[in-house]
Amino acid sequence: MKIVFATHNRNKAEEVAALLSQIEILSLSDINCHEDIPETSETLEGNAILKANHITENYKLNCFADDTGLEVAALDGAPGVYSARYAGPDNDASANMEKLLSTMKGVDNRNARFRTVIALHIDGNQYLFEGVCEGIILKKKSGTEGFGYDPIFQPKGYNRSFAEMSMEEKGKISHRGIAVSKLISFLNNL
Amino acid sequence: MKIVFATHNRNKAEEVAALLSQIEILSLSDINCHEDIPETSETLEGNAILKANHITENYKLNCFADDTGLEVAALDGAPGVYSARYAGPDNDASANMEKLLSTMKGVDNRNARFRTVIALHIDGNQYLFEGVCEGIILKKKSGTEGFGYDPIFQPKGYNRSFAEMSMEEKGKISHRGIAVSKLISFLNNL
Repeated sequence: MKIVFATHNRNKAEEVAALLSQIEILSLSDINCHEDIPETSETLEGNAILKANHITENYKLNCFADDTGLEVAALDGAPGVYSARYAGPDNDASANMEKLLSTMKGVDNRNARFRTVIALHIDGNQYLFEGVCEGIILKKKSGTEGFGYDPIFQPKGYNRSFAEMSMEEKGKISHRGIAVSKLISFLNNL
Repeated sequence: MKIVFATHNRNKAEEVAALLSQIEILSLSDINCHEDIPETSETLEGNAILKANHITENYKLNCFADDTGLEVAALDGAPGVYSARYAGPDNDASANMEKLLSTMKGVDNRNARFRTVIALHIDGNQYLFEGVCEGIILKKKSGTEGFGYDPIFQPKGYNRSFAEMSMEEKGKISHRGIAVSKLISFLNNL
């Protein structure tokens, strides 16, 4: 979103720019963390916390971590926490989608939801934020944007898959976008 | 604030970076607005709205504008909306401070507050956000950071003036910092 700050006062403009850049995200490369981080929990919450724990315990830094699952109603919430490894340990999005499409063949109830949980570790405290996006599993892949299951997930109220949306459009309605918005609001209100 | 995002997944990192940079501030120079903008209201709210109106009416852009006043209890809220022009129309911070210090000579009640009002115009709607910082008027200038009345304003709970704080430290407690935080939360929750 582009928005004009109507001031000719350079001091005010500088102050507001500093306020807006309060949150600076460091990547794992930035902190020289190259090892695998365990994701061995059976819940999204558990995995998000495991990943955040890894950083606070080994690097003593404030951090957040997310875990995301695709929960399909007709499959009792599967693949859920195992979404990234649904077709095996290789985290191959294409194989995962193929497996889900074939499992869902002939299934009428296409309802599903993406759910993201973010664990924030800040100054010794832990906070959790959740974002949910309801939708349906399409019968075939559509679109090339995004990643993971995006080509076969169509959010409620839209007639396009996530993979047919720009990152900005997806971010406004997606599970991760909603969870990150909650995180940002929280950090800005600290 | 620096915070680590604990993911090796480049797609997630990109999405979150895009979500964080949702708000891009344009300056008046960016939109080639070089004319003076009227501030002829007798209230902070009125001036913030006048300035925001100028941009939406002439440039058809989403925008926000702020107006800020220093309200001194012993002076019935003066200089208030006239803070920037207290010693005359030149907006000379030094002259304004000298006038206030001499007006307050011998006055025991030093209580004062900075108040910022932000008017946000977005997609045809108007929203107002307020930030207040309580404090006292010092008896002499102290510090060289900040701008305006910062050298003679000491926020409640501190024994230093705003002009003895870094921009980051001031931003966490200041009138403008509080108002901008409310603005950011609102924009992120749209």
